[in-house]
Amino acid sequence: MIGRGPRGERGEQAAKIIAAARRSFATRGYAATSLRSVAQDAGVDPGLVPYYFRTKTGLLEAVMQPPEAFGAAVAAAAEQPMDQRGRAFVQATMSLWEDPASAEILRSIILTADQEPAAMHRLRQLFSELVLAVVSHSLPDSERTLRASLIATQIVGMVMNRYIWQVGDIATLPADTVTDLLAPTIQHYLADPLPTKLGDGWRLS
Amino acid sequence: MIGRGPRGERGEQAAKIIAAARRSFATRGYAATSLRSVAQDAGVDPGLVPYYFRTKTGLLEAVMQPPEAFGAAVAAAAEQPMDQRGRAFVQATMSLWEDPASAEILRSIILTADQEPAAMHRLRQLFSELVLAVVSHSLPDSERTLRASLIATQIVGMVMNRYIWQVGDIATLPADTVTDLLAPTIQHYLADPLPTKLGDGWRLS
Repeated sequence: MIGRGPRGERGEQAAKIIAAARRSFATRGYAATSLRSVAQDAGVDPGLVPYYFRTKTGLLEAVMQPPEAFGAAVAAAAEQPMDQRGRAFVQATMSLWEDPASAEILRSIILTADQEPAAMHRLRQLFSELVLAVVSHSLPDSERTLRASLIATQIVGMVMNRYIWQVGDIATLPADTVTDLLAPTIQHYLADPLPTKLGDGWRLS
Repeated sequence: MIGRGPRGERGEQAAKIIAAARRSFATRGYAATSLRSVAQDAGVDPGLVPYYFRTKTGLLEAVMQPPEAFGAAVAAAAEQPMDQRGRAFVQATMSLWEDPASAEILRSIILTADQEPAAMHRLRQLFSELVLAVVSHSLPDSERTLRASLIATQIVGMVMNRYIWQVGDIATLPADTVTDLLAPTIQHYLADPLPTKLGDGWRLS
């Protein structure tokens, strides 16, 4: 596809199309979205959408790309000294979700995945590669994948309540307060002994 | 509508329609679902859907009804002695989600809410009335709504990772093990002192 169309316009037009697709997938639904309706919402020529993204699956793949800062933020937090790492993970999450541009992208990834199996498959991949693998990689012992998964439950639950559902006190507190409230939990999952009566079933790493 | 149609059939036919609507809202999407397609999926006469539910909004309202056991399970856990209540909340959650019938209902409520604003509004209402209000009512002091909201973040995050996204170790561990791992966190949010450096911003109750 390279070489067709005026130079420099690709980025701008493609970004408009992706933004329109994000909104439509997340609100109208993946199934109810057509390449034509995306073109209309984006205010571009209908031929441009298949030209840039070929199919609706191609457009979905583009929509499911996480913000560039996402992987870097998680990785940077994972490199903090262990006694500060719990807070660092919460801060990394808050900084991504308090920024409207990356929040919009993350939100559309979650909402699209919740209704389209192909998108859910991609969400699982991203989550495993960018969150669980990075977090667990920073931990030394056989409990590392379990600890990473526990951390994910607390982070995802905060995100759902505060940013997606907007329900409860957690939705309206200042970001710094949320960090203060959740950091000890994340630190607990990172570094505290796990319950001794766990069977062999949890040794999955 | 009462009195029309053969007696006794209402429950059975309506249940078939609701089940078909749940599946369609959660997978195909609310916008892409029609009363006619629901009738077809349910294997009932197309006229029965508007006859029983009037509009798609009426059908949505029916789909957003939580399992009967839901409110009772949360309320029973909230009445446990404080030192056992954290575990009781996790056990109540696990029992609802490990049961395929109630899990299917809860899952469709979440997935439908994530794409339809009217359903999201209903989810917030249900969540506030059946979870946050009940949990916080069982707590004595000015921190009760904050504590209930913190509990909700951990419970919802476990549900999303284990039952909706099915990602990470938390998705495959035995339910009892998940309970052992999360109960201390819920107990912490219920009963431990909150960070002292929180500003006035968190006093929302």
